[in-house]
Amino acid sequence: MLTKAQIRDLRSLRDRKHRETTGRFAVEGEKLVADLIAEGHAIEELYALESWTPPAGRHALPRRVVVSEEEMGRISHFPTPSPVLAVCVMRREELVPSMLATGRTLALDGVQDPGNVGTLIRVADWFGFACVLLSPDCADPHSPKVIQASMGSFARVPLFRTDLDEALSAAKVPVLGCDLTGESVHELAPQKNVVVVIGSEGRGLTDPVRERLTGRVTIPRIGKAESLNAAVAGAIVCAALAR
Amino acid sequence: MLTKAQIRDLRSLRDRKHRETTGRFAVEGEKLVADLIAEGHAIEELYALESWTPPAGRHALPRRVVVSEEEMGRISHFPTPSPVLAVCVMRREELVPSMLATGRTLALDGVQDPGNVGTLIRVADWFGFACVLLSPDCADPHSPKVIQASMGSFARVPLFRTDLDEALSAAKVPVLGCDLTGESVHELAPQKNVVVVIGSEGRGLTDPVRERLTGRVTIPRIGKAESLNAAVAGAIVCAALAR
Repeated sequence: MLTKAQIRDLRSLRDRKHRETTGRFAVEGEKLVADLIAEGHAIEELYALESWTPPAGRHALPRRVVVSEEEMGRISHFPTPSPVLAVCVMRREELVPSMLATGRTLALDGVQDPGNVGTLIRVADWFGFACVLLSPDCADPHSPKVIQASMGSFARVPLFRTDLDEALSAAKVPVLGCDLTGESVHELAPQKNVVVVIGSEGRGLTDPVRERLTGRVTIPRIGKAESLNAAVAGAIVCAALAR
Repeated sequence: MLTKAQIRDLRSLRDRKHRETTGRFAVEGEKLVADLIAEGHAIEELYALESWTPPAGRHALPRRVVVSEEEMGRISHFPTPSPVLAVCVMRREELVPSMLATGRTLALDGVQDPGNVGTLIRVADWFGFACVLLSPDCADPHSPKVIQASMGSFARVPLFRTDLDEALSAAKVPVLGCDLTGESVHELAPQKNVVVVIGSEGRGLTDPVRERLTGRVTIPRIGKAESLNAAVAGAIVCAALAR
């Protein structure tokens, strides 16, 4: 049985501050947890129903605490709890300038919707991007909704919360911003070494980031919609660069 | 002041059955309602706070009922109500076979996430698709979440809930399914006359729909993600066809 203090601690992982102070975050869902185990992600503890079966394979299993359905309902971050919740340890890698000297990088400049951030991490993973940079005002990549939308990609793609202006100033590769004007995405040559920057849903790219761009790319509109969803626009550009 | 019966009726519009029986649905948000008025969409009534200012322009304004913040809180479908809620009349156009004889059409085969359905309607609008077909098991296009994600595009793009198998059997243009195998999207020639079919998030395309396809298109993977979000995959294919 879980103590009150344990339940309080696990529930507090819904809160960004508590995640950052303790360097831990929660991941729920059988598929997601199985992915984390397969990837060898650092897991502090698993909280699972009696009925939960660990994934097959030769992976080392973290310490497992059996909880009742009622306890899972209390610690889960979702209205419909899954049979397993993993408490994971945040990776604290430093972004080093050499990471922006080669390869493809996706940078998010104030993308605030957790669904968009998660979807873009998944897009970066699909198209083999080396890492994702997130400005401090992006949705927290360790929040439950981002993790859910990223479908396990958050554990595979290195993520760095960083001042984009500073990070991009050290980039040795072209820095391409998605914008309402610029070169058509259909004319874009595939690029192996590039940073793609996606702006926020409401206001697009910030001025300091605009000054770091070496080019701008746009998705020509044929119909009448005022804009495209940020994740959709980012995906179309990433697909064009990675073809 | 609203009567109890009015509040009950407005709240019932959260419920798909009530929407379908009465042929009405609710739209909230200043921007969305302004778009509807500008598009000349049939609006039965507007429920607005005293403070709400109707959009500028020469559009005919529907009948307006002033409500208090407390009343708006009760009739709104969202935790944070907007200053205006429009009760709209559903369009009941019939899908006629000639609509699939020319132009670009997007067809959704069991896309269940309302965010994905709304985003795909917005994508269809951006790329000038003539209409969107939705199989009966798709998320309801008149649900609040779909409307929110479509950002006003739901009022511009004709939407048809229909049996896809039957509708596609009458198509006179190529029918292209998004799948895990098929021709690479990067090799796809732009097409002015085509139906693009997107399958559900979990199981992809259904068998009856597969049998109606004249081709399959896939998005080559470079990295490790298991799949792409359905809206993202659809957007990448629509962008390639409309370039």
